Amino acid sequence: MIKIIEKYEIIDLIKGAISEDMEGYGDITSKYLIPDKNISSAYIICKEPEGAVLSGLDIAVYICEEIDPMISIKFLSDDGASLDNMEGICDIKGPAASILKAERTSLNFIQHMSGIASLTNRFVKIAAPFGVKIADTRKTKPMLRKVEKYAVLCGGGHNHRFGLFDGVLIKDNHIAAAGGVLEAINSIRTNVPHTVRIEIEIKDFDELDLAIKGKADIIMLDNMSPEDMAKAVKIIRGKQEETIIEASGNVNLKTLEDICKTGIDVVSVGALTHSAPAIDFSLEFE
Amino acid sequence: MIKIIEKYEIIDLIKGAISEDMEGYGDITSKYLIPDKNISSAYIICKEPEGAVLSGLDIAVYICEEIDPMISIKFLSDDGASLDNMEGICDIKGPAASILKAERTSLNFIQHMSGIASLTNRFVKIAAPFGVKIADTRKTKPMLRKVEKYAVLCGGGHNHRFGLFDGVLIKDNHIAAAGGVLEAINSIRTNVPHTVRIEIEIKDFDELDLAIKGKADIIMLDNMSPEDMAKAVKIIRGKQEETIIEASGNVNLKTLEDICKTGIDVVSVGALTHSAPAIDFSLEFE
Amino acid sequence: MIKIIEKYEIIDLIKGAISEDMEGYGDITSKYLIPDKNISSAYIICKEPEGAVLSGLDIAVYICEEIDPMISIKFLSDDGASLDNMEGICDIKGPAASILKAERTSLNFIQHMSGIASLTNRFVKIAAPFGVKIADTRKTKPMLRKVEKYAVLCGGGHNHRFGLFDGVLIKDNHIAAAGGVLEAINSIRTNVPHTVRIEIEIKDFDELDLAIKGKADIIMLDNMSPEDMAKAVKIIRGKQEETIIEASGNVNLKTLEDICKTGIDVVSVGALTHSAPAIDFSLEFE
Amino acid sequence: MIKIIEKYEIIDLIKGAISEDMEGYGDITSKYLIPDKNISSAYIICKEPEGAVLSGLDIAVYICEEIDPMISIKFLSDDGASLDNMEGICDIKGPAASILKAERTSLNFIQHMSGIASLTNRFVKIAAPFGVKIADTRKTKPMLRKVEKYAVLCGGGHNHRFGLFDGVLIKDNHIAAAGGVLEAINSIRTNVPHTVRIEIEIKDFDELDLAIKGKADIIMLDNMSPEDMAKAVKIIRGKQEETIIEASGNVNLKTLEDICKTGIDVVSVGALTHSAPAIDFSLEFE
Amino acid sequence: MIKIIEKYEIIDLIKGAISEDMEGYGDITSKYLIPDKNISSAYIICKEPEGAVLSGLDIAVYICEEIDPMISIKFLSDDGASLDNMEGICDIKGPAASILKAERTSLNFIQHMSGIASLTNRFVKIAAPFGVKIADTRKTKPMLRKVEKYAVLCGGGHNHRFGLFDGVLIKDNHIAAAGGVLEAINSIRTNVPHTVRIEIEIKDFDELDLAIKGKADIIMLDNMSPEDMAKAVKIIRGKQEETIIEASGNVNLKTLEDICKTGIDVVSVGALTHSAPAIDFSLEFE
Amino acid sequence: MIKIIEKYEIIDLIKGAISEDMEGYGDITSKYLIPDKNISSAYIICKEPEGAVLSGLDIAVYICEEIDPMISIKFLSDDGASLDNMEGICDIKGPAASILKAERTSLNFIQHMSGIASLTNRFVKIAAPFGVKIADTRKTKPMLRKVEKYAVLCGGGHNHRFGLFDGVLIKDNHIAAAGGVLEAINSIRTNVPHTVRIEIEIKDFDELDLAIKGKADIIMLDNMSPEDMAKAVKIIRGKQEETIIEASGNVNLKTLEDICKTGIDVVSVGALTHSAPAIDFSLEFE
Repeated sequence: MIKIIEKYEIIDLIKGAISEDMEGYGDITSKYLIPDKNISSAYIICKEPEGAVLSGLDIAVYICEEIDPMISIKFLSDDGASLDNMEGICDIKGPAASILKAERTSLNFIQHMSGIASLTNRFVKIAAPFGVKIADTRKTKPMLRKVEKYAVLCGGGHNHRFGLFDGVLIKDNHIAAAGGVLEAINSIRTNVPHTVRIEIEIKDFDELDLAIKGKADIIMLDNMSPEDMAKAVKIIRGKQEETIIEASGNVNLKTLEDICKTGIDVVSVGALTHSAPAIDFSLEFE
Repeated sequence: MIKIIEKYEIIDLIKGAISEDMEGYGDITSKYLIPDKNISSAYIICKEPEGAVLSGLDIAVYICEEIDPMISIKFLSDDGASLDNMEGICDIKGPAASILKAERTSLNFIQHMSGIASLTNRFVKIAAPFGVKIADTRKTKPMLRKVEKYAVLCGGGHNHRFGLFDGVLIKDNHIAAAGGVLEAINSIRTNVPHTVRIEIEIKDFDELDLAIKGKADIIMLDNMSPEDMAKAVKIIRGKQEETIIEASGNVNLKTLEDICKTGIDVVSVGALTHSAPAIDFSLEFE
Repeated sequence: MIKIIEKYEIIDLIKGAISEDMEGYGDITSKYLIPDKNISSAYIICKEPEGAVLSGLDIAVYICEEIDPMISIKFLSDDGASLDNMEGICDIKGPAASILKAERTSLNFIQHMSGIASLTNRFVKIAAPFGVKIADTRKTKPMLRKVEKYAVLCGGGHNHRFGLFDGVLIKDNHIAAAGGVLEAINSIRTNVPHTVRIEIEIKDFDELDLAIKGKADIIMLDNMSPEDMAKAVKIIRGKQEETIIEASGNVNLKTLEDICKTGIDVVSVGALTHSAPAIDFSLEFE
Repeated sequence: MIKIIEKYEIIDLIKGAISEDMEGYGDITSKYLIPDKNISSAYIICKEPEGAVLSGLDIAVYICEEIDPMISIKFLSDDGASLDNMEGICDIKGPAASILKAERTSLNFIQHMSGIASLTNRFVKIAAPFGVKIADTRKTKPMLRKVEKYAVLCGGGHNHRFGLFDGVLIKDNHIAAAGGVLEAINSIRTNVPHTVRIEIEIKDFDELDLAIKGKADIIMLDNMSPEDMAKAVKIIRGKQEETIIEASGNVNLKTLEDICKTGIDVVSVGALTHSAPAIDFSLEFE
Repeated sequence: MIKIIEKYEIIDLIKGAISEDMEGYGDITSKYLIPDKNISSAYIICKEPEGAVLSGLDIAVYICEEIDPMISIKFLSDDGASLDNMEGICDIKGPAASILKAERTSLNFIQHMSGIASLTNRFVKIAAPFGVKIADTRKTKPMLRKVEKYAVLCGGGHNHRFGLFDGVLIKDNHIAAAGGVLEAINSIRTNVPHTVRIEIEIKDFDELDLAIKGKADIIMLDNMSPEDMAKAVKIIRGKQEETIIEASGNVNLKTLEDICKTGIDVVSVGALTHSAPAIDFSLEFE
Repeated sequence: MIKIIEKYEIIDLIKGAISEDMEGYGDITSKYLIPDKNISSAYIICKEPEGAVLSGLDIAVYICEEIDPMISIKFLSDDGASLDNMEGICDIKGPAASILKAERTSLNFIQHMSGIASLTNRFVKIAAPFGVKIADTRKTKPMLRKVEKYAVLCGGGHNHRFGLFDGVLIKDNHIAAAGGVLEAINSIRTNVPHTVRIEIEIKDFDELDLAIKGKADIIMLDNMSPEDMAKAVKIIRGKQEETIIEASGNVNLKTLEDICKTGIDVVSVGALTHSAPAIDFSLEFE
């Protein structure tokens, strides 16, 4: 996979972001103080002591194109790359007033997406030796799911379903409405597009047995202790080699290693997208 | 101020957020497993051990109205309220499938906005005894500035300018382009709408003198040590009682008290909106 | 599944459809000739000799609500129902001018969607005795995929993936780029969200062997003769009970029975959505 | 007239069509399997045995431009041209993954629009020797009226009014509300923009007499037998040479010739746009 | 015709207008000073000494509904009515802060639309005794054509074509491209939808002869002296009773009477929509 | 300040304006009469006897780019320039049919914006000798505030707040709700972003005293006689040198000079944007 996000995928988001910074009279400081269109040079650097992973660099280009086609950008790095402190990620040339208009919106994308990529990468480094994938969730910020889940990929993570529409996840309310675990699995298998897998969240070992019996494609072990998880994995693997086992709930950088040791396949982590702190980037003029 | 965010202000954001969760076939799990429209009861609770401040509750209502007018919500709390662990914030009645569709999108708003309100409140509690205001910045997530800055208010914080359009902030590039601090202030005073104040960011005591001479309305002390800040405050107050003094850069929960002691009026903190971790909320069916 | 399409899912489509009929001055005939808002009664009937299946009735309601809240509609049938010739599907009350504005746009949805439901139903009646599902494809009309695929469900059909985003389908170009069938399946299995199944289109028996070896979840037999299909089914079932087998290409009402006899699970048919003739409906005033 | 549809006229439709195929994660098959941007060659051919007329070729270009500016297209035919079986209509060069993303959306436009152009052309060939025009109606698919009516032109057909806004058509409800045929015609003549003609649908010879007396510009003979049509034409021509006479209702490829012989000027046919089957096109890589 | 403009016709315009007044933080004055939702009473009065004609009253309702459903409005007048100085046009009840938010946007519509209705009415009063219609043009403000042309109707005026799409007007460039007046008329008659009339602008008596020979439906006499107009009318009426004759160019309240005396049917006046001064309205709290 | 309006700021307005002129079938006259894309030459001239100031020239370029990239424009003047009668403002080259499509929409912007710039300039010429600024208001046309306020700058005027969001203006209802002038000023000062000035409208000398005591940044004297204004200015200047004094109400070209003589700083004039007559421009082909 080449780590790029295409312009047509996010152009409305970019326009919205520019617009919220420049309603009404636009940039009232620069328009009166920087009256000409002479070309200046600038660059963006990472100011994070360590562990930063880049995400969102293409978006800076799209923002600049939208604001002023006279701006040009030269990449010094790529999405997915690890960054040193004070490392430059791109050089920018263009009218100073235009660069100033593009600055904050561009940095807001990059600092947020790199924050997610960097946090993801810390989880991935722990899980990778166990062959376990770190997956995101639907716990994303409104309107930003596409870029946040792309940032998870940049950090080495793995995508879970995007929304309610591209993956089945049967939870307790669905089970209750359907009249039981087996009934739920069978009903969904009959009706849902045959192109998606059927995942079920189980809350105890009775439900686990039924999920195995129903041949669920993916079994989610939610909020289990590592001991119970290990026991569940053993039960599942004994009956159905191919079933994908996912762990979820109470996952953090401290508990992750013990979870990975249980033999599960995937760990899904809401914090990747709902609580990653921003990475510090700065745009400097030469 | 009543802490509400009106529906017309954020309806496009709400539609966008619903849409990213339910493209294509919509909720493929619930539509096949929960076929009827019988009324269920549910509630949302806060699962944060301590220090949570609520923000975004109205938005849950708007999301539910959009998805199914049969859903009704009863508030048990209000935006701006401090929440105990396991405290319920609202009761919900409606068709189970509709509630499930609204669940994640609603929680994504509330957990994020309450995260910002709660972090803001921690800063506010330190600064308030000194009569210092905690202000946000433009370092927000794309498309979310309106709700994030509303959340800052819920946490007891204060809003800085919304974007480039509703406040003047003269930075080094503007000064360079204008030919000096005084030239920049005078030029902007002549041209900009007379309804906005003129703020200037100064980097040393020479620039400070010029900013005072130019009668800047607001002087921003950026990345100064508390000692230099105190010195700067003394110089400004000696000449111009009314000038608003703002501190910025390297502000965190540890450094804040020392900064407040210097006598400044406002501290602006990017982390409020770019790095607040989410507060944990959960929707439970009865 | 209750066969309804929710208003928020298609409101933009409805607005667009109304708008293309009433740009500029709006309905220039009715606005000058029917000046009052007295309440008239009307109804919609099906004028198809036989075999019609209804789809799109909710949409008539949404269109009328958008044009004039004074219009009310009473359902006499439901989406998915078989219709007799001259059978009424709904009664309408409201101002005559408003009903006339809503008439053509409402009928355009119903006649097109019922056309798809009706054609689908003809395929389903042949395939059902063999336990074979009739599935749609991505060969839909621009902007109408959601309503067209909903109409397929109304006719008793089954949905394939909605778009490129919610199902994997590996075709010859993907195989060539990946360096072979096994390489393609393995690469996609490592990377793609674990919530979707992996489908591969195979063109001969060599590729079939590799697809089985790679444990593809779904194997598509494209443009094969019924004899070759039967042979392929036998090979697959001998090795992997669970694999879903899909037939595609050269499927019509005459060839369908022979295809179904081969033991495949699903037949996908582009014509359901790209070539279904409209069903004739008419709105009559009382 | 040059048969082109300009990009600005349909860009929103194109964006909507691309978007419904690539929500969420986009093309999940190609993005993981075709990682580079090397240039491939492909072409689109018509696979219809006979009678196909091309429409929509420009749209393929606009879709490709939107998805990836690295794609270039060379036309081998033009909208309005008759196509032989297996005739190529364009050559395409660009990154394989980008071409695959553009493929289905492009073909969906071309197959549908060419379907309409081809069916229109069959009607036109029958009517042309009699100097009769074949016109479309408002029985179009939602949101597609512009492209469908353009396709009618490509097939040699003629456009009726686009919507309710650009032509007057007085029907029975209007006559009833106005108090009679003459009253309706006079009232509309007084009020409606003087730039549109006044058309009236008549149901018997009494109404015909009044329509002639009222000097209607266009008289529509709806669902009349050819014999009655011929009689009506004779009556009209005897009194008002210039009146345009339109036939409508129960028109198909079998009944058309008899209708044309009656001396009417225009025949309007709903089936052109509501029931034209798709023409088969295929994109092949070299 | 009832003079109302339906909500669905202008809702996007209303949302846009509200939005340009309340971006960013919204109404920063009222939200901090009027914290409760107690119900206040207000009314809108006309402050124009004489000659005011009302237009746009429905729009005030739609704006208030959008901002706060707690606002209710009672009409005291109707669109198209003549207003006395200080006459009240509606009573308003609702939360004071909500009324203040709706005030300026509502008045901006009403003052502008009533300005157009009032100016139109002054032209209509001069022309009506001669049986001449006063028509608008396409010289409208961007995005406001629908409401401006509706205002012309409120003032007693008549609508010309809405845009380029619903009426033919052949000008000198079209004549040159087609190779002559007759060629242009014949070519357009063959191709254009038969539902629109054919209008031609002629610049001298040679062109007039050809336009009559070509049986143009409408002949526009552009920038002619009243003497030449009278001569042209005589020539046209002598040959083709039914032709509609339109005068245009250099029309104002002083020249209008002489133009009307020439026997033309319609006078089109750009100033109605491009230069009407606003009528003064004021919202007062009780 | 360079007087340009950037494309991204107004592209939606431009698209909307083009669209209202070319719905449905588009330009039905030109598409049938001007079939080729040969390049023609044209130019736009000002036909105003005197006093015209140009505004909106960039917009013509953006409209042409949107309609047909084959059109090119060469500027002969700039926004803000004074124009002689019959002076050319730009040369245009491109396909004649495309220029005709762009003509009216371009002229509608330029004639309206130049109308505002020209009227503004007449006020500015009177006020400038007194060092008084002429400011606009929120009395603008719906959706056009951005371009109308830009036009005010082109005419030498000054911008007041853009909307309710970027400036505080305390009026009588706010004072009543807050419980008095001082209470209102103090409450707003505590809460509102510190980046905006606090303006208050006072209706008598008692309120004036309180406004001075509350240290309002801007005091608006509304509908005062020049004598009272002079008295108020004297009182304010005697206590607070820096307060900005704004006059409003009953301002026209006749009363302006007397108002300016009173010593106020700014005069705000609603008529600039709500009642400026259009300037006459014409597009001519060579």
